[in-house]
Amino acid sequence: MTRFYESIERHLVAVDCVIFGYDIIDKNLKLLLIKRRFEPLKGGWSLPGGFVNDDESIKEAAGRVLKQLTGLEQVYMEQSYAWGEPGRDIGGRVITISHFALIKIQDIDPVMQEASAAHWRNITRLPDMVLDHSNLVGRALKELKERVKVKPVGFELLPEKFTLVQLQDLYEAIYMKNVDKRNFRKKILSMNLLEKMDEKEKETSKKGAYYYKFLPEKYEEFRRQGFYFNLDVN
Amino acid sequence: MTRFYESIERHLVAVDCVIFGYDIIDKNLKLLLIKRRFEPLKGGWSLPGGFVNDDESIKEAAGRVLKQLTGLEQVYMEQSYAWGEPGRDIGGRVITISHFALIKIQDIDPVMQEASAAHWRNITRLPDMVLDHSNLVGRALKELKERVKVKPVGFELLPEKFTLVQLQDLYEAIYMKNVDKRNFRKKILSMNLLEKMDEKEKETSKKGAYYYKFLPEKYEEFRRQGFYFNLDVN
Repeated sequence: MTRFYESIERHLVAVDCVIFGYDIIDKNLKLLLIKRRFEPLKGGWSLPGGFVNDDESIKEAAGRVLKQLTGLEQVYMEQSYAWGEPGRDIGGRVITISHFALIKIQDIDPVMQEASAAHWRNITRLPDMVLDHSNLVGRALKELKERVKVKPVGFELLPEKFTLVQLQDLYEAIYMKNVDKRNFRKKILSMNLLEKMDEKEKETSKKGAYYYKFLPEKYEEFRRQGFYFNLDVN
Repeated sequence: MTRFYESIERHLVAVDCVIFGYDIIDKNLKLLLIKRRFEPLKGGWSLPGGFVNDDESIKEAAGRVLKQLTGLEQVYMEQSYAWGEPGRDIGGRVITISHFALIKIQDIDPVMQEASAAHWRNITRLPDMVLDHSNLVGRALKELKERVKVKPVGFELLPEKFTLVQLQDLYEAIYMKNVDKRNFRKKILSMNLLEKMDEKEKETSKKGAYYYKFLPEKYEEFRRQGFYFNLDVN
């Protein structure tokens, strides 16, 4: 550390994770929240978070928080925003860098989830949250809405195989509004990114609906050719 | 400060500003760089930056850096990304939050620019920069390209009145490629966000070209009605 740097004020730096999951049965977009484990505001609903250690990057810190809570690694995660109002944390000045993560609900380790007292809460019925965490969620949700329009990241929230109805339900849950079925199907199928499987989903209708799966290698191939994903169904 | 927070490691937190300007004469997108004034790497080309003080927000810190360098306030500025690899700064661990700003070159206070030894460098011929500053620029440039497609922020880089040719030149400088003239004009005029003025620009052609100005209040009105700016001319 050079002499010049030594004289400078330092700050607490944290990460907070806005962890989205999607419940294919009740068709709700959900957020994984915890009860804060320390004062101030102990017991309040909070985003999972933690302080950045000296030897880890911001990304590693966010990955560590996520792994401790869910047991998951290799998860889709994006940095969202750095929040640094001097008074945002009543316990002292903390600069936090929010991230949003997209996970498949069924992949979570239930034992870890239980141990960390993490709860899935519907995005449309969130509880009051500690500090400015509602703002962190609001921004992440806005970013998610933009992202699923131009990148095939919605599939991160679905099981490996899904029906077109289930895919549309997901988009409707994220956009919080209905989407035209014909237009949606036309757009998604025209991109040639889905493979129709031989198997049918038969629990929700007698006739059944074919399962599809997303082909990430196709997307990468098309992307290299200058193709842009576009599922703007707003 | 609560007892729990007191035991946590702290970090140096900085802001760095990627300041874009546009030269309407030579049609180049430019970046305002300085020579670093302290060790390590004293004298190297650097983004203007500074450490976040205890009593200011991240946004205020970035605004302070920008004002000290240019004399400007009320400038379009967006947070870009938090960079926190433990080894990114050879002088010690510094987490920096990059911002990009769009300014009108002619508005800069020339005395302040001179005093701070700031230099405009063409984006296509940038010098080697200290630390990871090239990455900060790369990301901000990518964000600028996306932003000017979906928000009318390109006008922040132009004088109050401009010709359609000058507007197209700006987009070509940002995209770093040619744009179809007819398509570009059709798109921008169809949005009804520009007012044609009575005055003509006559320096670059004998016949002259009408000046236009951007109407921010129209944009706000349309936006409230659910209109989306779209100048996707890629």
